[in-house]
Amino acid sequence: MTYPRYTPLIESLPASVPFVGPEEQERQRGAPFAARLGANENLFGPSPHALAAIRAEAENVWKYGDPTSHDLRAALADHMGVALENVLVGEGIDGLLGNLVRLLIGTGDAVVTSDGAYPTFNYHVTGFGGALHKVPYRDDHEDLPALVARAHEVGAKLIYFANPDNPMGTWVPGADVTAALDTLPDGCILCLDEAYVEFAPEGTAADIAPDDPRVIRMRTFSKAYGMAGARIGYAVGAAALIKSFDKIRNHFGMNRMAQVGALAALHDTGWLAHVQAEVRRSRDSIAQVAKENGLSALPSATNFVTVDCGCDGAYARRVLAGLVARGVFVRMPFVAPQDRCIRISCGRAEEMEVLAKTLPEALRDADQTG
Amino acid sequence: MTYPRYTPLIESLPASVPFVGPEEQERQRGAPFAARLGANENLFGPSPHALAAIRAEAENVWKYGDPTSHDLRAALADHMGVALENVLVGEGIDGLLGNLVRLLIGTGDAVVTSDGAYPTFNYHVTGFGGALHKVPYRDDHEDLPALVARAHEVGAKLIYFANPDNPMGTWVPGADVTAALDTLPDGCILCLDEAYVEFAPEGTAADIAPDDPRVIRMRTFSKAYGMAGARIGYAVGAAALIKSFDKIRNHFGMNRMAQVGALAALHDTGWLAHVQAEVRRSRDSIAQVAKENGLSALPSATNFVTVDCGCDGAYARRVLAGLVARGVFVRMPFVAPQDRCIRISCGRAEEMEVLAKTLPEALRDADQTG
Repeated sequence: MTYPRYTPLIESLPASVPFVGPEEQERQRGAPFAARLGANENLFGPSPHALAAIRAEAENVWKYGDPTSHDLRAALADHMGVALENVLVGEGIDGLLGNLVRLLIGTGDAVVTSDGAYPTFNYHVTGFGGALHKVPYRDDHEDLPALVARAHEVGAKLIYFANPDNPMGTWVPGADVTAALDTLPDGCILCLDEAYVEFAPEGTAADIAPDDPRVIRMRTFSKAYGMAGARIGYAVGAAALIKSFDKIRNHFGMNRMAQVGALAALHDTGWLAHVQAEVRRSRDSIAQVAKENGLSALPSATNFVTVDCGCDGAYARRVLAGLVARGVFVRMPFVAPQDRCIRISCGRAEEMEVLAKTLPEALRDADQTG
Repeated sequence: MTYPRYTPLIESLPASVPFVGPEEQERQRGAPFAARLGANENLFGPSPHALAAIRAEAENVWKYGDPTSHDLRAALADHMGVALENVLVGEGIDGLLGNLVRLLIGTGDAVVTSDGAYPTFNYHVTGFGGALHKVPYRDDHEDLPALVARAHEVGAKLIYFANPDNPMGTWVPGADVTAALDTLPDGCILCLDEAYVEFAPEGTAADIAPDDPRVIRMRTFSKAYGMAGARIGYAVGAAALIKSFDKIRNHFGMNRMAQVGALAALHDTGWLAHVQAEVRRSRDSIAQVAKENGLSALPSATNFVTVDCGCDGAYARRVLAGLVARGVFVRMPFVAPQDRCIRISCGRAEEMEVLAKTLPEALRDADQTG
C-alpha cells in the first residue's frame, strides 16, 4: 500500500517547521518561564471592556460566529475610513496571509520579501509553491526601493513589507510607502503588514485610497490590543480583492468571543493609549538595561526592542540560550547579519526586573563559553 | 493595470458561496429569529465547567495559544485510546477538512462524496482543483459500498463519509465502516466525519486501529459539547498523516480560550450525558410535531431531525420560507430527492413550542401558494 498519496507540492515541503511555542520550551525545560518576552505579546493585556465582553459572550459559545463578522467589520471600516466591503476579518494576520498567498501565488510564481523578515509569510509562499526572492536589509531596515526593484527583475506578483518591521523594530515614514506604490510593477500587489503600527510614531501608517488595487494592508488585535490568544486580524484593501477571499476562506472560522472582544477593544481608545504609554516606558527600560550591559538597542516603533549583542550570530545565540535557561523567553532574528541581535518584547516592571537581573549573567556565560 | 492577478485555479472558482449565516438573514429580515434551529448548534449549551474555564482563561488572552494544543491533545488521545501523535487539534472540522484536502488533492485529483452531503467539504475540494465525483444517497443513507465502488472507478485519493450523516441524520453501524476499509482502492483515504457521533447509538463509532493509514476521523466540540462558536475540532489518524498537517497548518491558529474550554468540556461527562438525554427528548418532540402536521420525521442519530415534507423540493422550500418568515431559522438539504425535506435542529422546550406553533402556519401557506 502507498499511504498517504500527498500532492507533489506537499511532498516537496520540509517536514520540520520553526514554530516552537513557549509552552513546548517550558515542557522541555521542566519549568515555566519567569518572563514571557519572546513572542511580542502584549503583557499589559487587553482592555477591561474587551475582557468583560468576552466573558459575557461565553454563554453564547454554542452559536457559530457570524461568518461575515459584520458588526466588527463595520466598526473597522469606520476606524480605517473605508467602506464595509474594503475590510475582511480573519483568524489573525497569519491566517489572512495564508489566504492572500493562496489567491495570488501558484507554482513558480515570484514573490519578494526581505531576507530575515516574517517567516510565516515565507512558510505560506513555500506552501503554495511560490518562488521566494529575498532582498537584504539595509542598515537594519527593510529596503522598500530594493524590494520593488527586485520585483521588477523577477516579475513578482506579490511583495511583503512590514512597517514597522519585525524582527528589527525599525520603520519608514508612511509617505515612503505611499510613494512606492507608483513604482510597483504592473499587477504586483504590496502586502503591507502593519501589525505593530499602533506603536509607531505619527505618520508611519501609509495614506492609501480605499480602493487602491495595488496594496492590501494587514492589521491585528494581537499586538496593541493585547488579544493574541483570540486570533483576530483584519485586511483592508480594494473591494474586489477583499471579496475574492470569500472563494477560499473558512467562512465559519471566527471565534465568537474574539469577535465581540475585538469590537469592545477597538472602542476603548483610552486603554490603547495606556498600553502605548506603557510600551514606550518599557522600550526605554530595555534600552537602559542593554546600555548598562554594554549593548546597544535599536530604535523601535513596536512593542519589542531588538538589542545588538555586538558580535556575531554564534555569540547572540549563546546570549539567547543563557536568557532562556534562566527563565526569560526571548527570540532572535534568524538571518545574518541581523542574527547578531536578540529581540525582547516589552513587559511590565516585574519582567523588566527579571531581565535586568538575568542579562548580565547570560552575557557572562556567553563570554566565557565563546 | 491588471489587478489582481489571481492564480488560474482561483479565477475558475465561483464568486458566490452558499455560506449565509443566521445573523445575515436576521439583518435582511430586520428582526432576530425566535428559534435558532438551522445550524445544528447545541441549544443546551456547553458544560458549566467549560464556561468557567473559558471565563477564567480570558485574562490570558494576551498570550498566543499553545501551537501544539498539547494538553488538549493529550486528553483527546486518552479519550480516543490512541497516542498523542495520532491526534491533531484544529479550527473546527471545517478547517481540518481544508487542510486534509490541501495535503492530498491537486488539480484533477479524484474525490468521491455523496450527492447532497456536506457542502463545505466540496468547497475545499473545488478550491484546491480536485474533481468531485458524487454518488446518490440510497434510502436517505449515504451509500458506503457505492462510494467505494466509485472510488475504484475514478481512482479516487479521498472519500468523504459522515457517520451519522448530515443533512439526513441517518447512520450505519460502525462495523460496516471498519469492514469497508478493506475494500478501499490502494492509497485511497476515507475521511470519516464523526461530528455527530456522540448523539448516535452505541456501536456507530467505527473500531479503527490507531495507525491505520487508510482512514482519518474528524470530531468536534461544536455539536455534543456545545462550543460551535469556539471553533475547535480534532482529527485522529495515522501518525505520519497527522504529522504532515504541520507542513501547512496555521500553527498559531488556535484560540486560547477554546483550548481550555474544550479540555474542561471533555472531562465533564455528566454534562455530555445531560445533553444527550435532552437531544433525545427534543428529537421525539420534533417527530411528534411533524406527525401532528401530517409529515414524517426520519430516524436521527444526530442533534437534528430531517422532516420529510412529503412532496417535492419546491414545496419543501415554501415550507422552509414560511418558517423563516415567522422567525424559525431552519435549513434544508440542497439536492433532490433529499430536498423534499427540511432539517430542524434540536432545541429546548421553548424552541419546540415556537416550532409547534409555526409549522402548521408555514404548511398552510405552502399549500395555498403551491
